[in-house]
Amino acid sequence: MQSKFRLLIVGFGNIGRSVLRSLSNYPDFECVGVVTRSPERVASELEDMLIYDLAQNDWKDCDADVAILCGGSKEDLPNQGPLFAKYFNTVCSFDTHAHIDNYIDESGKRQSGYYHIMDAIAKMNKHTAMVCHGWDPGTFSMMRALFTACLGEVRAEGFYGLTTGGGLSMGHSDALRTIPGVKDARQYTHAKPGAIEILKSNPDMLLGLGDMHWRECFIVAEDGADKDRIKELIVSMPNYFEPFDTTVNFISEEELDAKHSGMPHDGMVLATAEHGSMEFRNYWSSNPQGTAGILLAFARAAVHFNEDGLNGAFTSLEVPIKYLLREPSDFLKYI
Amino acid sequence: MQSKFRLLIVGFGNIGRSVLRSLSNYPDFECVGVVTRSPERVASELEDMLIYDLAQNDWKDCDADVAILCGGSKEDLPNQGPLFAKYFNTVCSFDTHAHIDNYIDESGKRQSGYYHIMDAIAKMNKHTAMVCHGWDPGTFSMMRALFTACLGEVRAEGFYGLTTGGGLSMGHSDALRTIPGVKDARQYTHAKPGAIEILKSNPDMLLGLGDMHWRECFIVAEDGADKDRIKELIVSMPNYFEPFDTTVNFISEEELDAKHSGMPHDGMVLATAEHGSMEFRNYWSSNPQGTAGILLAFARAAVHFNEDGLNGAFTSLEVPIKYLLREPSDFLKYI
Repeated sequence: MQSKFRLLIVGFGNIGRSVLRSLSNYPDFECVGVVTRSPERVASELEDMLIYDLAQNDWKDCDADVAILCGGSKEDLPNQGPLFAKYFNTVCSFDTHAHIDNYIDESGKRQSGYYHIMDAIAKMNKHTAMVCHGWDPGTFSMMRALFTACLGEVRAEGFYGLTTGGGLSMGHSDALRTIPGVKDARQYTHAKPGAIEILKSNPDMLLGLGDMHWRECFIVAEDGADKDRIKELIVSMPNYFEPFDTTVNFISEEELDAKHSGMPHDGMVLATAEHGSMEFRNYWSSNPQGTAGILLAFARAAVHFNEDGLNGAFTSLEVPIKYLLREPSDFLKYI
Repeated sequence: MQSKFRLLIVGFGNIGRSVLRSLSNYPDFECVGVVTRSPERVASELEDMLIYDLAQNDWKDCDADVAILCGGSKEDLPNQGPLFAKYFNTVCSFDTHAHIDNYIDESGKRQSGYYHIMDAIAKMNKHTAMVCHGWDPGTFSMMRALFTACLGEVRAEGFYGLTTGGGLSMGHSDALRTIPGVKDARQYTHAKPGAIEILKSNPDMLLGLGDMHWRECFIVAEDGADKDRIKELIVSMPNYFEPFDTTVNFISEEELDAKHSGMPHDGMVLATAEHGSMEFRNYWSSNPQGTAGILLAFARAAVHFNEDGLNGAFTSLEVPIKYLLREPSDFLKYI
């Protein structure tokens, strides 16, 4: 029997917990350690697990085949990605689309994108870094490229929150919590079904951001906060809410905990040509659990690629799907 | 500017015609010739096109980067695949699932599958043979493997004919036409919507063939034919109709021509886990046109693979999606 892939989990928030929980469905992996900023908290939660303090650097000596980086794209991955790619093969779901390729920052300075930084570090250390492997970027990226190629240069569009309740956006919920007077908040993204119908019948129609989605906010206000002012600050927030139809609902903390503690999300990639259309959908009752499965599938690819001497960074468009399988050599049974 | 891919079209039936018609959406290709068994018929249809007689073998001297093999899987590809892979990089949509890998034939003898034959011939001649690149096998195969890997060893099921009219099955229509007294026929496959709902809520449920689809037949009978006998022969035909709920409608030749001359088809791959589901759908108003786009996308991959020295046969699970793009090096813009 082939020995198991030795897995290091870096970060123990929603995604890290979900990766560990998913291992029952990925019996070809064993977790050999968890790296965290809060070793005591995590140790109290996990028995019989080697816990590393991120700050102590002794995790560098861990004998892992691959590290799944479960931190956030804003604060964690820009540092942790290059740091861990020096010592391990890595997988992450870095999702700041504008910072994946090289870009010009606010001061007009050219910056290296995450993909290129990870590529350089991984190559230098003979490692393989699977980057941007969540659902968007990730499986949605695969569909955008596949649909464009197979339908003949058509445009593929993404929709988010197609179910009745919509999809919980962590980034927009965080943005709401930065507003003075907001104690807690959840933001659900909703696709506009009419926009999907329009794109199915008029593939060339260019729709604006606000034509495709609307946003629904649930706010717990602090005692005595000016609700009208909060609402005004929300609907006028550039990029996040200003381009969209946005509804704002004030609710109690009890209601928020009772009705909005889940993390559902879903989305769709759609492309339409004259002779037909292709579409992909995913529905997650747990968004982090959906992401965890994708990370684990690409963790297999990281190890296989590295064994084959393929060093550097790789997105979902650079990996043959057979390497995501538990038994890549058995791929013909899926054909 | 990069020169165009020089394309040879082999076979000029529904698929061959659709490939040629699709070239307006694939401006990186130019057709340098069509190989056919009926050169006179095809020459009368195509002006300013080099037409080769399949029997004459002078097509071997055509200077093409890739040949798209547009023949049928039963009679044409088992011979034409190996023949053309000797002289060209090839792409085909071979779709006899049971004969792709090695198999035991009816006489109990072990036979080499199409994949392995094409792999050997292509390697021997330093060519690249992209095999089984239609929608099933093809894009559906990619989804089965991707969903299984990302959802954790769940089973992915295929459904066909989800639209009101169902999907036109060429193979089953051919089978109907072999029945004595049948002048012409069309068969539409219909998914049972209830089966999809069952699989979404009970991923482990094992459904039989007839639980997932039903079949609808439109028959033009010859004058004086025994319709009851025809109906009996249809519903009792093993494999094709016996396992399914099947309806049989007798119609006039005029009605068949008026209402059933299109070639629509559609299908879905669905996989469900406890924490969510993934699904892929395609809808073709023209099934051959849908297949043509997929063949052209993988024709790009055939040339790129061959340039990189990757010889042999390759299915959709072995090709990074970036190689299907018009500009593979631009792949980051799809991430």
